[in-house]
Amino acid sequence: MRIGIAGLGLIGGSLALALRERHEVTGYDVDEAARKAAAGDGIRVAARLDDLGQADAVVVATPMTAIVPTLERLAAHSDGAVLLDTGSLKRAVADFASRAPKDARIVGGHPMAGTTSSGFSAADKDLFRGRPFLLVPTERSDDAAMSVSGTIARDCGATVTVCSAAVHDRAMARLLAAPLATAAALAVAGAEADPLLGAAGPGFRDSTRLAETPLDLAIELLFGSAKDTRAAIEAVIDGLEQLRDRLDQDDREYVRNFLRTARSVRDELG
Amino acid sequence: MRIGIAGLGLIGGSLALALRERHEVTGYDVDEAARKAAAGDGIRVAARLDDLGQADAVVVATPMTAIVPTLERLAAHSDGAVLLDTGSLKRAVADFASRAPKDARIVGGHPMAGTTSSGFSAADKDLFRGRPFLLVPTERSDDAAMSVSGTIARDCGATVTVCSAAVHDRAMARLLAAPLATAAALAVAGAEADPLLGAAGPGFRDSTRLAETPLDLAIELLFGSAKDTRAAIEAVIDGLEQLRDRLDQDDREYVRNFLRTARSVRDELG
Repeated sequence: MRIGIAGLGLIGGSLALALRERHEVTGYDVDEAARKAAAGDGIRVAARLDDLGQADAVVVATPMTAIVPTLERLAAHSDGAVLLDTGSLKRAVADFASRAPKDARIVGGHPMAGTTSSGFSAADKDLFRGRPFLLVPTERSDDAAMSVSGTIARDCGATVTVCSAAVHDRAMARLLAAPLATAAALAVAGAEADPLLGAAGPGFRDSTRLAETPLDLAIELLFGSAKDTRAAIEAVIDGLEQLRDRLDQDDREYVRNFLRTARSVRDELG
Repeated sequence: MRIGIAGLGLIGGSLALALRERHEVTGYDVDEAARKAAAGDGIRVAARLDDLGQADAVVVATPMTAIVPTLERLAAHSDGAVLLDTGSLKRAVADFASRAPKDARIVGGHPMAGTTSSGFSAADKDLFRGRPFLLVPTERSDDAAMSVSGTIARDCGATVTVCSAAVHDRAMARLLAAPLATAAALAVAGAEADPLLGAAGPGFRDSTRLAETPLDLAIELLFGSAKDTRAAIEAVIDGLEQLRDRLDQDDREYVRNFLRTARSVRDELG
């Protein structure tokens, strides 16, 4: 297939490197340095976003705030190309699709992969290997568009799961937003461990690592589907309040069972 | 020095392996299999706990619930040996010291190292290398006892920090107990991510990893200094409530600053 990739950061760059083995890939990034880095690595690079439209599919891998504007621009003259985004939340994409031109073909995508690094220099053709790639059909998704999107995901080495935007964003609030909020709250509470903060072991370090999420991305993850984030944070608060109350009552059996439930969830992660 | 080690699990076994290079080490464990494993690795093993007393120091590296009973038994006829424990909380040890025989010499110790593995088979002479080893003086700690304890810690490759039991346990509530409680609450809340739970990435996995803490240890960490744990959990709840409220108000600037504060705490971890 001819595949355009808008945004050549960690995700878009990794997609370009993974897909060029089987497809005719053209990339674009608003940042000239990113374009040069990709070109230096042998990626064919277009001079303008609009040049990507003449393709079977265009993957939109920009920062989250730019996804809908980029889809909008591409949808205006995409000439049948399937537009697939890669953002961490899907409701906004589904909402846009419902008001997009009737001939637009839009599929929501979310490859569940990433690192704390960013930019094309961190791109890796194996970033998606063995990872889930979630696909969300929209009002502008036909069967062929879903099939094209599935091929893209699988040709990166990822495993495809299809779900609705609502299910997706609710789950991501639990798996991404609440852990991020909790990491931040734990880190802020940890300041009181001074003067022993420096003695923190791997437990505290791992528990607070998500507080290093790049700020713009963190704000998008938290506010992008605020209602879901709120419910997920409430659920964590609820759990902590249960534990606090049972501490007060010296109810070790309850806490033991709570911990057992937590482990059974971990077991399901596989 | 002649050093006895009571408890040959991960911590005691690692101490034995690290210290035998420079000291005359004798170990003991209530479990015969642990004694055999240690003996098989060349550790001299005593047949009874009381046999450890004829030494310059005895390190008590039993599970937390057994620490005070073991100290009590050793203190009854320790004949001048420094008794150093390795538990994750220090208030109970300090309390015991204040009512121990006048000639007992007791120092609280907490090597900040560990793995999710346990038992002698997981012991590693380099477990403590470069890690903090906190020492807590008690009413039964003289200068020479602190010095002996410092030598033991340093001869394992650890870095010594001295603090009070109150400061220690307050800090550990923030660095160990609250992250453990939070990991459990996040995991339980994560169950609602079904059917996408299996798509969880490294962020959710790391954030909930402490829910795998062995149950008995987890209960001791949470209940061993319940007042401190309660305050630490309250602090995390407070942070989450702030984030939730600012989500409701769409106050991104506040959340951005909260995240910046969290990162500054992470920066202090070094």
